[in-house]
Amino acid sequence: MDIEVLGLVAGGITSVAMMPQLIKVIKEKNAEDISVVMLLVLITGLSLWVWYGILQNELPIILSNSFSVLVNITLLICCMMFKKKS
Amino acid sequence: MDIEVLGLVAGGITSVAMMPQLIKVIKEKNAEDISVVMLLVLITGLSLWVWYGILQNELPIILSNSFSVLVNITLLICCMMFKKKS
Repeated sequence: MDIEVLGLVAGGITSVAMMPQLIKVIKEKNAEDISVVMLLVLITGLSLWVWYGILQNELPIILSNSFSVLVNITLLICCMMFKKKS
Repeated sequence: MDIEVLGLVAGGITSVAMMPQLIKVIKEKNAEDISVVMLLVLITGLSLWVWYGILQNELPIILSNSFSVLVNITLLICCMMFKKKS
């Protein structure tokens, strides 16, 4: 199998695996089990992975980590919105 | 900065970001918010990333995703142990 295809499949699967968490938080408007500090650490690490992917010129790494950054920024926004209310 | 060092730092940060979840589940002996299906999907995707890292011969990708596989297998075991009890 082409290595890039393998990377894109891997990235697709790990991206899909994050969705239930995001959907649950948005649906239940409840993010109290999620740590804001953990999200900030994760966003930092994922951004470094995007940087790594750009330097290595590897599309699967850039795409999947950029998507993860977006998902986690959305989770962070949800955390801040829903925690304010409660 | 050396690209491999960047990758190792990125991998280290994203690995550390997973620990609070694992510690919380083990400490509280409660994994009811975690979906077993999601964990299985995630473990599949992460294993493909390890395979990708081996084919590309990139140590940061192999190390960080292998660590993630271990953490998620531990979470899976916790899920099955703690769900049986309740």
